[in-house]
Amino acid sequence: MSHVVTRRTVCVSALTALAAPGASARNRMVTAEQWGVAEIALSGQTDGNPFVDVALSARFVGGDCTVVANGFYDGDGTYRIRFCPPVPGEWRYTTRSNSDRLDGIDGKIAVSPPAAGNHGPVGVADTYHFAYADGTPFKQIGTTSYGWMHQTDALCALTLQTLKNAPFNKLRMAVFPNGTLDNRPVYPFVGTPHAWDTTRFNPVFFRRLETRIGQLRDLGIEADVILFHPYDEGKWGFDAMPREADERYVRYVVARLSAYRNVWWSMANEYDVFPHKTEEDFDRIFQIVQDADCYGRLRSIHHLHKMYDNNKPWVTHASIQSATLAEDAERCVVLRDVWRKPVILDEVQYEGNHDQRWAQLSGEEMVHRFWEGTVAGEYVGHSEFFEDDKHHMWLGTGGALRGISPPRLAFLRKVLEDGPAHGLDPIDQAHDRRLAGIAGAYYLLYFGKACPREWAFSLPKEKLRDGMRFTVDVLDTWNMTIASDPGVYTIKKQGQYDFADERGRAVALPGRPGIALRIKPF
Amino acid sequence: MSHVVTRRTVCVSALTALAAPGASARNRMVTAEQWGVAEIALSGQTDGNPFVDVALSARFVGGDCTVVANGFYDGDGTYRIRFCPPVPGEWRYTTRSNSDRLDGIDGKIAVSPPAAGNHGPVGVADTYHFAYADGTPFKQIGTTSYGWMHQTDALCALTLQTLKNAPFNKLRMAVFPNGTLDNRPVYPFVGTPHAWDTTRFNPVFFRRLETRIGQLRDLGIEADVILFHPYDEGKWGFDAMPREADERYVRYVVARLSAYRNVWWSMANEYDVFPHKTEEDFDRIFQIVQDADCYGRLRSIHHLHKMYDNNKPWVTHASIQSATLAEDAERCVVLRDVWRKPVILDEVQYEGNHDQRWAQLSGEEMVHRFWEGTVAGEYVGHSEFFEDDKHHMWLGTGGALRGISPPRLAFLRKVLEDGPAHGLDPIDQAHDRRLAGIAGAYYLLYFGKACPREWAFSLPKEKLRDGMRFTVDVLDTWNMTIASDPGVYTIKKQGQYDFADERGRAVALPGRPGIALRIKPF
Repeated sequence: MSHVVTRRTVCVSALTALAAPGASARNRMVTAEQWGVAEIALSGQTDGNPFVDVALSARFVGGDCTVVANGFYDGDGTYRIRFCPPVPGEWRYTTRSNSDRLDGIDGKIAVSPPAAGNHGPVGVADTYHFAYADGTPFKQIGTTSYGWMHQTDALCALTLQTLKNAPFNKLRMAVFPNGTLDNRPVYPFVGTPHAWDTTRFNPVFFRRLETRIGQLRDLGIEADVILFHPYDEGKWGFDAMPREADERYVRYVVARLSAYRNVWWSMANEYDVFPHKTEEDFDRIFQIVQDADCYGRLRSIHHLHKMYDNNKPWVTHASIQSATLAEDAERCVVLRDVWRKPVILDEVQYEGNHDQRWAQLSGEEMVHRFWEGTVAGEYVGHSEFFEDDKHHMWLGTGGALRGISPPRLAFLRKVLEDGPAHGLDPIDQAHDRRLAGIAGAYYLLYFGKACPREWAFSLPKEKLRDGMRFTVDVLDTWNMTIASDPGVYTIKKQGQYDFADERGRAVALPGRPGIALRIKPF
Repeated sequence: MSHVVTRRTVCVSALTALAAPGASARNRMVTAEQWGVAEIALSGQTDGNPFVDVALSARFVGGDCTVVANGFYDGDGTYRIRFCPPVPGEWRYTTRSNSDRLDGIDGKIAVSPPAAGNHGPVGVADTYHFAYADGTPFKQIGTTSYGWMHQTDALCALTLQTLKNAPFNKLRMAVFPNGTLDNRPVYPFVGTPHAWDTTRFNPVFFRRLETRIGQLRDLGIEADVILFHPYDEGKWGFDAMPREADERYVRYVVARLSAYRNVWWSMANEYDVFPHKTEEDFDRIFQIVQDADCYGRLRSIHHLHKMYDNNKPWVTHASIQSATLAEDAERCVVLRDVWRKPVILDEVQYEGNHDQRWAQLSGEEMVHRFWEGTVAGEYVGHSEFFEDDKHHMWLGTGGALRGISPPRLAFLRKVLEDGPAHGLDPIDQAHDRRLAGIAGAYYLLYFGKACPREWAFSLPKEKLRDGMRFTVDVLDTWNMTIASDPGVYTIKKQGQYDFADERGRAVALPGRPGIALRIKPF
């Protein structure tokens, strides 16, 4: 018996009736939601090593669309193929396998329109930005908690509760552990540290990973899944597996997770400091993910010193670590220019009280860096490092947030979501303006750490003409207030490059740091 | 009679005796200088259109080296093949042609070591820097004079006189005219504006170009030859030729010029604003140059708004136009990081009195931008726009320099040439230091527009240990003075990232802008 279910229903894997090779489930119609996960569970062989011996995929055809998704062995004689329907309507599928029992099974899926809150997967939009598949803009406000999934259920529950009330819509998380673990640790492979059988995966580990990713999805949070990291410190050896083990692991993870609409792929954290991996290894891993992921989820890689060549065709967006770049919009905007892809400043250092400089930002500085990235037409990521008495800290383990930046990042997110759907692009980029938006239609001007008491109304000439009228909101990015300036400013060409208020008026400002202006046509 | 000559001797093209196909000039030994130009002149057919009908090349073999150089038709029945010997010793050559009269001619060249001042061609060194072929570092201090070669002999002579006394060791120049011309203009093709026969080149034009390049070489100046530019303004149509004409032109220029050791290739100025050319066109032009130039001279391209992907394999270094990047070392250093190639900020705006912002820098600002680029581990280019009463200005026509930056750029060049041969790399690049050099061995610290009265001695920890001793020179980059600070500073670890003077001493500074420190081990 073939059975198709959405992720949120119980997964019935009672396919024992399908003992005959090529047995058909034709006309068995099951329902799924667009961009949900439909799962086909099949019973098959348990002899040999099914993880490596059995190849399984299914071809899904709906209307003009065809999707060929790889399946995977989930232990105990159960094989699964997960399908994320890109369009609603009736879909048909047929399996293909080198195992007769799993080959040639077919069936139907009735795909309904997405439920409320399901906007589909996020993709690149308008070169530098992101949008969900249904067209809803995605204004990335990221955070990182590398090892949250490896903690106790209680701590994971606290993390999820924290996220529910936090502004973040993307979370960077590692598959492999990197420090504190649940005191009943579960590992991705059968075996023991440094004696793994990398040809045999541990389904319990991956089910837990899937549960966490599903929980993030249900909170509207994208999961940026970090496939490799160099922080193993000799504990487990996951950073130094043979090439074949790396590739098998990557294909297995992709087969299990790619149907989740909120999955993004990060090939590695700090790819350039792995002792046993070269840049070419990561080129190859990128290409394996690209090949194996039939949904084309977003793909990036994170560096320490040596930036990856994000012009390579398999990179969908840049994932950047840098302190200095994030201090200045004019610095980080270069990255957009050179790569012509969206840029996420995923690591701009962390809010915290660490004794090392990578985690001792004030809340104010963290918020400042988000705004600098924003007026560069880019996106920024947060994390924090404040240890509690149990050595839990957000960056490593999740739990509670102690920093003071998150409410201000919620304020920024609201500003972005109230802004143009397209996203913000730098205006008059040849000159240092800290001004982004859409010329003539919407401007966000950020004064950074300067504390001006007024701003003489003036905008770069692009798309402007004499007589246009504008209003100004004064945003206090730290105190989270928006004050409408009472003026309506009528512009007139002034010099070769600008339009100023025709009466030379200025907008009064509070003389505090962190002030931004939102300027819109009246 | 085959005849081989160096460029500086008279070129004897009396090869009429070689009427028989495959005629041999074996055992005819002529001398040339390493990295000079040896030229083989041959008589051949004049019927048909020799520019397109005749293919000619020669294989040069010397020791373990083989060079296959393309020849070209120089009019009046004369064909030439130019050879730049990469190593001294005896070389042998054999020609190859689809024209029997030019095919199978062989001979010898005795190549002597280079004369004084001939360091060979410039290439990329240590990823981010340049060196001559003999290992001498090349510290690029560039300038631009787009149309200088198209001016009268008198004005060209003035330009050369100016260059003789100027600090520049590279000059960007266009092949095609872009404005003021000699009042007896000579064009690269036979025909008249918009009615060129692009299949027939005008050797007189190219001989003039070669003369100018040779004159620059004799002054020790690299010629960055701009193959295309978009400033034609409909006058001649050189920016909008058919693809075949572009390619024929590029191959002809490369065949004529690549043997000149001081030639660099710039595919275009502002490649992104040609009305009839795409980025792919320039990809192709790059590849044609790469294919046709047997010497592998440096290759770059210059942009206005849209940076070219300088990670493409045919790009040897980045040639950048930007005002904002050059204002801040931490901005422009990103370009090194993303491309891992040398970066030349060829256009940082110009010193001048133009009414548009691209040519109204003060001399002080021009010098400042050179220093910002320098402490970013990059190189910078100058030009100026001050029109005289004959509408001559350096940027367009050459002539005299009126700006006040050049003596300060000579000062910078001297500092660089006195510095480490390797070149300057940013130190502790993760944090905003404006500090470049070689950790532990040489530091150049630039204070920019700040006017500090003292600097507490402190260096980033890389390669340092307690007890090391340093001395400091205080450089005034505008007044061109170097004052040795009397102190010897003994360092001691201070905090996690720095070493400071063990007694907490500071270096006294003059409180003016444009101060730099040169710090070396005692």
